[in-house]
Amino acid sequence: MATDIESALTQLGRGVEGVFSLEELRRKLDVSAKEGRPLRIKLGMDPTAPDLHLGHSVVLRKMRQFQDLGHTAVLIIGDYTARIGDPTGRDTTRPVLDEATIRRNAQTYLDQAGKILLTDPGRLEVRWNSEWLSKLSFADVLRLTGQVTVQQMLHRENFKLRVEQNREIVLSEFLYPLMQGYDSVVVRADVELGGTDQTFNNLIGRDLMARYNLERQVVMVMPILVGLDGTEKMSKSKGNYIAITDTPDEMFGKIMSIPDNLMPNYYQLLTDLPGDRIKSLLDPQTTHPREAKDVLAQVIVESFHPEPDAAHRASAEFRRRFAEHQLPSDIETRTVAQSPLGVVELLHTLGFAASNSEARRLIEGGAVSINDQKISDPKAMVTVAGDQIVRVGKRRVCKITKA
Amino acid sequence: MATDIESALTQLGRGVEGVFSLEELRRKLDVSAKEGRPLRIKLGMDPTAPDLHLGHSVVLRKMRQFQDLGHTAVLIIGDYTARIGDPTGRDTTRPVLDEATIRRNAQTYLDQAGKILLTDPGRLEVRWNSEWLSKLSFADVLRLTGQVTVQQMLHRENFKLRVEQNREIVLSEFLYPLMQGYDSVVVRADVELGGTDQTFNNLIGRDLMARYNLERQVVMVMPILVGLDGTEKMSKSKGNYIAITDTPDEMFGKIMSIPDNLMPNYYQLLTDLPGDRIKSLLDPQTTHPREAKDVLAQVIVESFHPEPDAAHRASAEFRRRFAEHQLPSDIETRTVAQSPLGVVELLHTLGFAASNSEARRLIEGGAVSINDQKISDPKAMVTVAGDQIVRVGKRRVCKITKA
Repeated sequence: MATDIESALTQLGRGVEGVFSLEELRRKLDVSAKEGRPLRIKLGMDPTAPDLHLGHSVVLRKMRQFQDLGHTAVLIIGDYTARIGDPTGRDTTRPVLDEATIRRNAQTYLDQAGKILLTDPGRLEVRWNSEWLSKLSFADVLRLTGQVTVQQMLHRENFKLRVEQNREIVLSEFLYPLMQGYDSVVVRADVELGGTDQTFNNLIGRDLMARYNLERQVVMVMPILVGLDGTEKMSKSKGNYIAITDTPDEMFGKIMSIPDNLMPNYYQLLTDLPGDRIKSLLDPQTTHPREAKDVLAQVIVESFHPEPDAAHRASAEFRRRFAEHQLPSDIETRTVAQSPLGVVELLHTLGFAASNSEARRLIEGGAVSINDQKISDPKAMVTVAGDQIVRVGKRRVCKITKA
Repeated sequence: MATDIESALTQLGRGVEGVFSLEELRRKLDVSAKEGRPLRIKLGMDPTAPDLHLGHSVVLRKMRQFQDLGHTAVLIIGDYTARIGDPTGRDTTRPVLDEATIRRNAQTYLDQAGKILLTDPGRLEVRWNSEWLSKLSFADVLRLTGQVTVQQMLHRENFKLRVEQNREIVLSEFLYPLMQGYDSVVVRADVELGGTDQTFNNLIGRDLMARYNLERQVVMVMPILVGLDGTEKMSKSKGNYIAITDTPDEMFGKIMSIPDNLMPNYYQLLTDLPGDRIKSLLDPQTTHPREAKDVLAQVIVESFHPEPDAAHRASAEFRRRFAEHQLPSDIETRTVAQSPLGVVELLHTLGFAASNSEARRLIEGGAVSINDQKISDPKAMVTVAGDQIVRVGKRRVCKITKA
């Protein structure tokens, strides 16, 4: 039994940035095993942005590990705040989101999260926090706000920075962490999961539980996943993301585009491969980085598209297209005297079309590209500025340069 | 009309420490006169400490001036916070005061305030803030807290000091000024009165009204009355106070005990005497300070005890007792050889008692005092240390000194 718990701890600790505290987690796992009572693993979700990407999956995968060990996922949909609206804008009295939108967003979230989590009723509990927050009276709020100090709140990174920079903090913003914390009190969370950006909020929940005479939750925070660009946090608004709903081909291609130095991170946070295997994959002596990335992409694609061969086919398709876009080693360079010139005339000049009308047909048919940019307008003008690659279909290709 | 308003402003401005803003008050008085609509003058009371003293009367007298000009006093009893309790103590979950106590305290307050305010229903409106605060939902509280910034709160003297001194501010404490402010929104106050210590809270109410799209209240703050000791704020806990319920004699005597330099302040804040008259009373060329204090005491006593002659009788009684305790100008000094010695022996030695048993009878009968301290124990020892005044009854008195 003790060994089981240690192995569970090792598994659960993988990729984790911080645990408050490991000792308490060990004890909770121990009691859970002895009493046959699953732990309640809480995760809050904000129903404003329903499109999940691999950044979200890091925490959801941790949740799934708990489920696989027999524990219960408790997903809290923060519909209350979304419905009343963040009053930060001072006079925003109208809801930011109406109930129908929230319900739709939450459903989208659940559909997507269901690609990672077990969703059978015994393993997943979905709760909407309006259930209890809408019932709080002013007296309850005073009790709640009586549990924390202003100084504690001002310690939060985000708030501290704003004080230093003389930027306003609206008082209601201090209530948001308390609402999340109160969610933990109500659902009696054993563990709360989150990204490192949620550390402060989740610790408030931990404190609150103690103040409400409950065993406090363990807080476990996961690192923020870096996006495809290799520097910024993965986010939809930055365009550097892989959506959970991406097709196998999209997902595969995007993973193949990450910088090599992101691989250890992605292996650690997005796969369950054993440490030894990862180590050997990441060792350039034993595995070519391109091969390592191919394995990474296949494993990740497979986790979202478990249908037979999906990942394998994505890999093959990627190789095929990659090869196809390779330039022949003996590419011909042609000089062009006139610049700018019409694309129709260019194709004719290069001998890639027998006539202007054939050139137009090829362009309209989508067969023509310059530097991998498809040219679809027969009236387009081309400025020959350096070495440009002109392609027509798969076979005709040359480099053009100014005479 | 304009002249009336200027004279009203002069009267209302008397003794006031700050008005935010005088221009708005002028406009409100003007509109009120034109529309025949009384202004609503708000004053909050805390139902925890029902014993009123002259310090409280300063603000209540200002309220009365507004009533005398035809305006409506709106007295807010802060029963809501008193009932739920200030949660500052972190885990105070039980009410500090039960409803019966609050109701009793409020009644005592009203009885006492009724010695200053007009209490007929048209002139005084009494409201309990639980009427609206108990109905606020969490959403309402978020809206309320969305109207102020944390930085604004931290500017409050009391909070600023605590941050500097590293003393905790519990978050709920930030909600109290908002509750008071929300009272102003609900009762649509035109003017809020208070002591200078309420300036911050009342200005929050002024701001809030604007944010709730109401004409904001004028805030008028009165100075804090100094107590009998001449230095500290008048307060029950410091024992330097004159209670509104003191008898004419108690009140008179206490006023006669204040240092002379408090007189201008007391005249200004506790009487309606015209400025010229006060000036002449305070001029030692025209009025002896003792006489000036006697007039002050009579005027104040009369305002709380308007029954015919009450103030006059208190003055006469004070003079009588004062005179009685005066030492004769030709007091005899006697030297005493032995020290310490028993009080019985002392009286016998001085010839104030014909025998030891007469001395004992006089002592037990309460006729004997040394330095105005009654001696009631016949076994008491007296140490002759300097000049001490020994009295027996009203006629026998002498000074004793060590041989």
